[in-house]
Amino acid sequence: MSLKIALAQLNLLVGGITANCDKIIATAKYARDQQGADVVVFPELAITGYPPEDLLLRPDFIAAAQTALHVVAQAVSDIHLVVGFPEASVAGLYNSAAVLRDGQVLCVYRKNCLPNYGVFDEQRYFIAGHELVQFELKGSNIALTICEDIWHPGVLLKNRAAGADIAITLNASPYHAGKMQEREDVICTQVKQAQLPLVYVNQIGGQDELIFDGASFVANQHGEIVLRAAEFQENVKCVEFVNHVPQANKCAPLYASVASVYQALVLGVRDYVQKNGFKGALLGLSGGIDSALVLALAVDALGADKVVAVLMPSCYTQEMSIEDAVAEAEALNVHYEIIPIAPAVQAFTEMLAPVFADTAKDTTEENIQARCRGVILMAMSNKQGKILLTTGNKSEMSVGYATLYGDMAGGFAPIKDVPKLLVYALSDYRNSLAPVIPERVLTRAPSAELAPNQVDADSLPAYENLDPILERYIERDQSADEIIAQGYLPDEVRRALTLVDRNEYKRRQSPPGIKITTRAFGRDRRYPMTSGYKGIP
Amino acid sequence: MSLKIALAQLNLLVGGITANCDKIIATAKYARDQQGADVVVFPELAITGYPPEDLLLRPDFIAAAQTALHVVAQAVSDIHLVVGFPEASVAGLYNSAAVLRDGQVLCVYRKNCLPNYGVFDEQRYFIAGHELVQFELKGSNIALTICEDIWHPGVLLKNRAAGADIAITLNASPYHAGKMQEREDVICTQVKQAQLPLVYVNQIGGQDELIFDGASFVANQHGEIVLRAAEFQENVKCVEFVNHVPQANKCAPLYASVASVYQALVLGVRDYVQKNGFKGALLGLSGGIDSALVLALAVDALGADKVVAVLMPSCYTQEMSIEDAVAEAEALNVHYEIIPIAPAVQAFTEMLAPVFADTAKDTTEENIQARCRGVILMAMSNKQGKILLTTGNKSEMSVGYATLYGDMAGGFAPIKDVPKLLVYALSDYRNSLAPVIPERVLTRAPSAELAPNQVDADSLPAYENLDPILERYIERDQSADEIIAQGYLPDEVRRALTLVDRNEYKRRQSPPGIKITTRAFGRDRRYPMTSGYKGIP
Repeated sequence: MSLKIALAQLNLLVGGITANCDKIIATAKYARDQQGADVVVFPELAITGYPPEDLLLRPDFIAAAQTALHVVAQAVSDIHLVVGFPEASVAGLYNSAAVLRDGQVLCVYRKNCLPNYGVFDEQRYFIAGHELVQFELKGSNIALTICEDIWHPGVLLKNRAAGADIAITLNASPYHAGKMQEREDVICTQVKQAQLPLVYVNQIGGQDELIFDGASFVANQHGEIVLRAAEFQENVKCVEFVNHVPQANKCAPLYASVASVYQALVLGVRDYVQKNGFKGALLGLSGGIDSALVLALAVDALGADKVVAVLMPSCYTQEMSIEDAVAEAEALNVHYEIIPIAPAVQAFTEMLAPVFADTAKDTTEENIQARCRGVILMAMSNKQGKILLTTGNKSEMSVGYATLYGDMAGGFAPIKDVPKLLVYALSDYRNSLAPVIPERVLTRAPSAELAPNQVDADSLPAYENLDPILERYIERDQSADEIIAQGYLPDEVRRALTLVDRNEYKRRQSPPGIKITTRAFGRDRRYPMTSGYKGIP
Repeated sequence: MSLKIALAQLNLLVGGITANCDKIIATAKYARDQQGADVVVFPELAITGYPPEDLLLRPDFIAAAQTALHVVAQAVSDIHLVVGFPEASVAGLYNSAAVLRDGQVLCVYRKNCLPNYGVFDEQRYFIAGHELVQFELKGSNIALTICEDIWHPGVLLKNRAAGADIAITLNASPYHAGKMQEREDVICTQVKQAQLPLVYVNQIGGQDELIFDGASFVANQHGEIVLRAAEFQENVKCVEFVNHVPQANKCAPLYASVASVYQALVLGVRDYVQKNGFKGALLGLSGGIDSALVLALAVDALGADKVVAVLMPSCYTQEMSIEDAVAEAEALNVHYEIIPIAPAVQAFTEMLAPVFADTAKDTTEENIQARCRGVILMAMSNKQGKILLTTGNKSEMSVGYATLYGDMAGGFAPIKDVPKLLVYALSDYRNSLAPVIPERVLTRAPSAELAPNQVDADSLPAYENLDPILERYIERDQSADEIIAQGYLPDEVRRALTLVDRNEYKRRQSPPGIKITTRAFGRDRRYPMTSGYKGIP
């Protein structure tokens, strides 16, 4: 017996119930008419998009989602739809999946395992279901599961024992580098153990700080991938089961690590800008590597005609910085402006002279320069309706090597979760596609150019040491002693950890950026600002 | 038989394990030696402070807390200590209370009910205990509970049934206006039902966005309060039980509503500034009511000599604004500076003229003024080591009537959760203690003074209408239809809700401020920035 299941790997809009329903209906019709699918499976909470966060606390929002589910059910006939939605009940709210057919709700599965770690807050909103749910179609018993469920041993086994021939899982599984491989490894182990073929449907798209990478797949009962949808793009794939066995189909390859991060960043920028209705993007282009990479990302995400670069040299800006910035803009065919900041810096210096009399120069004067640039960029953003992209990387965000309201100003921070060494790797990768970042930018010593002959290495450990120290402290929760035991210099470890601890207040006011590591700043890492804890003993 | 229980209402430091232990030890000795207490009860998670947030994910932090508990146990003899701490186990982490005596851990209670709503994320960190725990002392069976436990019916009843004579509860219960009354009402209902006298110990102090107000109390088996510690200050009170009956003692009165908010704000400012090691505070003083109130709060929190006011007039600043600002600073004996912003505004205007050629004036030009002020204030903050207090109120934060990196710049936002009408009430209250805010400031029409003859009412509904609309939408999750049904003008409701929805991005980058309502912006309200949801149908 043949059964065709379509995997609707869609880019949905959080909160955009009407738009999501339109897309679900159109996709169901496409799967039915163009692919001959018997059933089409949508991602977790497809009706509302994922994660809807505290919108789930609004009765009007839940009521609208409930209504929308019935609209979808009525709108498409002659195909089963499996649709994620928030289900209100007397006991509380469930994260549910409904099976719809010809206007009817055939059955509803309620997610059993509610993640409440990392970026997830599902126990804030939902209560857990405790039942297994399967439905029968063309001789197959199809088990329903949602995302976190199948990361836990036992759920597929239990469904197998209860008579399932095929399992379906609806997902909104956020990206970090290496996640696709991890996901397939963990889940295929469960599949193999249960000897239960699995249809895994993930959403794609950027939502604030999260990327959903898609990479939906079908695994046979041996845990072998027999179909995979391409990552980072919308995709409706169809798999045919013959006697419960999925037939081999096209497996889109997974991107290599650095390329995958690049794609994630492009998707993240595009979706944040477009879903929020900006006319384009602008950024300060310094001649350094960070802004060079963000420029390339912005162009790849939005097109060169939607991007504006602004060069804002000061008396500390080297000539080569201007040359390189101009070369980058020209290589990418991006309009650029040059606005020297001296007049504003001069004005503030004179205005503050009476108050600052008898004080020595310190970082205050450096911050004033950065903040003058912030004012210029925000004025252009306000006037032109383009979002300001800020260009700080994760190494800087970690140690606070950035000026609040200065270079940290902006609506979105594309490389906020990208450590400096990975900035270089991404730039190399982008240059391997077409050379857009001058070689000199890749090789010169990084500098904020806020004081004479300043380089990052004056105040920070070399990035070759700093980045792994930060990764161990921030992502792996290692103590100073553990990191030092790995061979890092005690002084450098202490300096790095002290700076991380001290700069939580700055990160709390930073723009959102794209999570690409196992722990990003933002919802993913919730630290107190006021804290007696010091990473160092 | 007589039993004396001390209530240690302490101000602890999140993450400051060593400092907290020192304070716990000193307090135990005081309760033993000065009050003759048999047992001293500390707040929830006293060892680590509350809420430690993601510090709880660090193995080194948990290990340090575990060690500290034993240090405390060893350090004090001849008195029982009931101490909250995070308890590591093979199964996971518990939010626990240990009973210590003469170096031994007599027993440990593990919190049963883990709040995961509002500002709480306890299910992110802890697993729930399922046992009741009681210990015997001088003929009394004393039941242990922690915070959320006793908000649920049944816990005290079950303890009563299991033989308890007295219940103790360790708390870190965050403040909002009216919370103390709500707390006593709910909890005394449980007490009365169970006929089980209760010793309720709450911490006090400010921790980032939260205030813990103390107001620890003892209720007899009829649910009558027989002792109450003063709100908003450290306090070690002792209650004597004779034959399990608590003897009447001093009941500190509860503050009236507006006065209580004022005290909460003062405590919040003081603790944020002092716990984070700032030398003082500064703020921009406009002559408007918001900055006038924040100035008074800062002075009451820190002392006039720690506070600096900065007047930054523009060509749109009315003479009376300057007069009133000077009068406020002088009334509070605060040092002030006057720095006109014209030179910087002029510089930016000229620098941007080529880019802005052929464009009309809009809010961009207003934002430039606000951002020039932000640069000046941040420069003074950087140079002087004083924190910049931002002066925006909740009504403005709700509708985005503020300039990001301009008047929103600052390290702490004392009245961020205070609606405009409450700003007036708080100012009246402060003036009732001693007149510090000129009458004219209380009566003139609110204005941002960023354009000629501008007043808030040009772009916003009158605050008498706006504030209740916002409260219904933000705090009570009412829909537009529900709010309109209460008699508010449909146009005003739509305008207000649209602005709230549209400005989530701005709030995400705003400085932390003090929660005083049932739902503050921050950890308490987690909305997506990218969202298709519109509050209006």
